[in-house]
Amino acid sequence: MKSSPSWIIQKKRDGKELEKQEILDLIQGLSDGRVADYQASAFLMATYFRGMTLNETVALTEAMLNSGERYDLTTVPGIKVDKHSTGGVGDKVSLILAPLAAACGLKVPMMSGRGLGHSGGTVDKLESIPGFNIQLTREQFTETLSRVGCAMTSQTSQICPADKKLYALRDVTATVECIPLITASILSKKIAEGADALVLDVKIGNGAFMKTQRQGQALAKTLIQVAKIMGLPARAILSNMNQPLGYAAGNAIEVKESIEILKNQKQADLCSADLKELTIQLCAQMLEVGKITKNLSEGRKLAHSRLTDGSAWKVFQQLVQTQGGNLEAIQDPNLIPLAPQRKSWVAKKSGYLVKMNTESLGRILIELGGGRKRASDPIDPTVGLTFHHKLGNKIKSGEPLVTLYAKEETQLEPILEELTRAIEISAAKKPVPKLIFEQIKK
Amino acid sequence: MKSSPSWIIQKKRDGKELEKQEILDLIQGLSDGRVADYQASAFLMATYFRGMTLNETVALTEAMLNSGERYDLTTVPGIKVDKHSTGGVGDKVSLILAPLAAACGLKVPMMSGRGLGHSGGTVDKLESIPGFNIQLTREQFTETLSRVGCAMTSQTSQICPADKKLYALRDVTATVECIPLITASILSKKIAEGADALVLDVKIGNGAFMKTQRQGQALAKTLIQVAKIMGLPARAILSNMNQPLGYAAGNAIEVKESIEILKNQKQADLCSADLKELTIQLCAQMLEVGKITKNLSEGRKLAHSRLTDGSAWKVFQQLVQTQGGNLEAIQDPNLIPLAPQRKSWVAKKSGYLVKMNTESLGRILIELGGGRKRASDPIDPTVGLTFHHKLGNKIKSGEPLVTLYAKEETQLEPILEELTRAIEISAAKKPVPKLIFEQIKK
Repeated sequence: MKSSPSWIIQKKRDGKELEKQEILDLIQGLSDGRVADYQASAFLMATYFRGMTLNETVALTEAMLNSGERYDLTTVPGIKVDKHSTGGVGDKVSLILAPLAAACGLKVPMMSGRGLGHSGGTVDKLESIPGFNIQLTREQFTETLSRVGCAMTSQTSQICPADKKLYALRDVTATVECIPLITASILSKKIAEGADALVLDVKIGNGAFMKTQRQGQALAKTLIQVAKIMGLPARAILSNMNQPLGYAAGNAIEVKESIEILKNQKQADLCSADLKELTIQLCAQMLEVGKITKNLSEGRKLAHSRLTDGSAWKVFQQLVQTQGGNLEAIQDPNLIPLAPQRKSWVAKKSGYLVKMNTESLGRILIELGGGRKRASDPIDPTVGLTFHHKLGNKIKSGEPLVTLYAKEETQLEPILEELTRAIEISAAKKPVPKLIFEQIKK
Repeated sequence: MKSSPSWIIQKKRDGKELEKQEILDLIQGLSDGRVADYQASAFLMATYFRGMTLNETVALTEAMLNSGERYDLTTVPGIKVDKHSTGGVGDKVSLILAPLAAACGLKVPMMSGRGLGHSGGTVDKLESIPGFNIQLTREQFTETLSRVGCAMTSQTSQICPADKKLYALRDVTATVECIPLITASILSKKIAEGADALVLDVKIGNGAFMKTQRQGQALAKTLIQVAKIMGLPARAILSNMNQPLGYAAGNAIEVKESIEILKNQKQADLCSADLKELTIQLCAQMLEVGKITKNLSEGRKLAHSRLTDGSAWKVFQQLVQTQGGNLEAIQDPNLIPLAPQRKSWVAKKSGYLVKMNTESLGRILIELGGGRKRASDPIDPTVGLTFHHKLGNKIKSGEPLVTLYAKEETQLEPILEELTRAIEISAAKKPVPKLIFEQIKK
């Protein structure tokens, strides 16, 4: 009786620390059917309220890790470093960063998720490249990593199946924003994929799960501590998610923006400056933790040169080709189609752009069909939004601020209406939050 | 999106008051499949932590009531008063009280549950009378009530199906001990069965869901307030559940004890005095709320005389006969079989009986096979325990305190071992808690 699922739920509910074995029983039970979904979700909600100690979080991470297989990448020469972002709107950093870090001499084994909730997923973005295979076998993953320097795939059903189940439950039971659950979910997958070290991009702001710097710090510290105990060196930067990153949100359109940066096109939109800067900063962190460069300043220099000299673009093309994608489509992104119905939201008054409700912008993308309400929903890669201004910019009345790409003309008007609530223009200038708040190493 | 199940869960999680319509949506969704079990259990756990306002509790009760049919007993002459106990060990009051209150002039429409958790259920007890039909149709229920003065049945699948579902979920997700959930569960059923008034027996102590008098008061007050808003006059007494009620715990054996009291047998076990007293007190409350007597003192007198003059016993025999039970079996209770393996637990030292862990005693009954671990488990009516002493009694070393009735001899030893942990004898006498702590009228 003492180890029955309802007893474990009750113990957590009452704020007592669970034994490692109890957490293991619960997670194993979820896999073998002894623990019902409705018991798991009650446990998740109790954990939302009671939290977890460091020991409990480590036990949960281990239990989820051991629910599936674990890749051994020791046969791949080089230092394997991955990056993980806690999710936001317009965050296409991985598409640029993986080939860039590879071009700088690291190996980047990247196993990503699909978008769920208002935040996008790297796997969905990659799928808008015609032919791109995001379901690599273990062998294909290792082989691509060795040959190209990076490999990008989705979480297979053999990797952390317990996490997959819990993640899907959390999404529909209001138990996403919970530090120990986020920690175990991220780290179990990253350890399973075989990385030697990890750089975390913890998003903070109105488009992130963590709304305040304090919450972001707490999440980053827990992630780093648990990772360390489990033998994975990790560090984090806290970055701004009070506006979309770059100028685009949507799957195909984010691939196009990434390609512009990888090609180092002079005409690359000014609104992509934050995206480029964040990518270089994250790359420098990866290079330092992977011991390619001695410090961050050297790392930034190396990353900048490998981006501007076309090395990263070269790696990206190799990656696309190796993973079955259409090379011509990325070389001429006009071959990647965008949705036909387009309309811009224009400023109704002059002033400064002082607020973008980023979560609302993410939800607008879902309404356009570019994201999911349920895990089983199909998505339309061609829809999206582009942003013509950044927070703090001076705006003239009548100027376009956002352009919508929709499938049906009838979708446009109600969404323009929603944009009016999501965007704020004010006569008084307000301070713009920094792109990167801080770095956390332990 | 605003009324999606996960939004409603989140709102409760964040401590905001839910709209009546949101609660209705959730409960209707549980019936029609829009709300998954795992979402309901997350909602239950969030409610465990956040509680509910009076308005929310009323809305939940209404939603559960309206999930099924509602009996109209206006064709039955007389005042219909029911009693509900929040559950305990050895609580067979209903078996005596229903015919007693009927003998005093009330109509008693009693729809009861099965035992679940460590506490027993009236329906299971009645089923140990051979032939007794506890699944009356609506017509049979009304007809029996009119003719006999009381009718005893189980909750049909048409009565509060949403409550049935939630109750089963609560039992396996550690969300039983939650005042608004308990309130909505009890009252939705009592209103559906068509009672005019209700007397509540709120149990307090180590064998009850409410451990302290304060918790019991809070539950009683919420029950009475919500019932009043919904048009059902109700009142409560808080009674002691720090030891089993009467001398028996088990299904058939509790029926035997009830029959002894109904027959007013001179030799009725002294350990049944509390059972008899509580039954008379509850009956007096029913008679006052049902306006048969002007005050409690008159009610107690009437109840006592109808019990001792054999009227209640007569009604019970009519009830058993009308509901298909074997009259000979209750007239000669030796015809109701008890389990063959018997062994007594004897005091290892002399002193006073100062503690009985009543929940443990209830769990021992489950281990013997007389209760359920899961709602679908079968039960054995013949097993049970009898108690030879009450708290505060002086005990001699070597004297039997508890006798077990088991199916298999091998069950006896480990359970005797558990009894050693559940029962405490001390050289120093300790104060014995009162049988009835207080009555609450609003």
